[in-house]
Amino acid sequence: MTAARILAEITFNAAGLVPAIAQQHDTGEVLMMAWMNRDSIAETLETGRVCYWSRSRAALWRKGETSGHLQALVEMRLDCDGDTLLLLVDQTGPACHTNRRNCFYRAVRDGDLVTIAKPEA
Amino acid sequence: MTAARILAEITFNAAGLVPAIAQQHDTGEVLMMAWMNRDSIAETLETGRVCYWSRSRAALWRKGETSGHLQALVEMRLDCDGDTLLLLVDQTGPACHTNRRNCFYRAVRDGDLVTIAKPEA
Repeated sequence: MTAARILAEITFNAAGLVPAIAQQHDTGEVLMMAWMNRDSIAETLETGRVCYWSRSRAALWRKGETSGHLQALVEMRLDCDGDTLLLLVDQTGPACHTNRRNCFYRAVRDGDLVTIAKPEA
Repeated sequence: MTAARILAEITFNAAGLVPAIAQQHDTGEVLMMAWMNRDSIAETLETGRVCYWSRSRAALWRKGETSGHLQALVEMRLDCDGDTLLLLVDQTGPACHTNRRNCFYRAVRDGDLVTIAKPEA
């Protein structure tokens, strides 16, 4: 698959990045949000395994490469403005580096932040 | 509700913004992604109606103020790094300005972008 025609429709920010939301394809659970650049998008489309761009490491971030917590790409979607991606994925193990299934485990309840999920065993 | 203790946990970017993913609370549908600043978060928590920051207009964007397509906040969540919000909402009407239910109506299929949802009648 050539990624060129897909990349042409994406609006990257000044840093050459676009935010990507990862959603578990069958349950609808929003797992995480990370950033992608042209290379990581092209690699993801080619391999079917999600690869982000790590802003902190300034390097390609092949999700699960060290942890084994891979994200298999089911479908990539693009929003109306072309500046946000939605990745429907099949997540192996926890998506979050805290070992939780997803990264959004803190909820605002009664004016405070409450932790609503535990790390997996 | 005072938003101060929530805002203290959020990492804003250099422009003072944080990305916010809106998800329909009961179906799990990812509706859109937009940006919030301190004022829009405080207003959203206070009113229970989602208010973003419009980067193009450089102004508070009270979602649905003109269209009537309001987002009632069900719960605000924060990710592990504190730099992305997940808004569980109850969306009235379409979330997208194209009159589609959600903004992610273009999918990569067979190497091309395919429109997978029609505007609502």
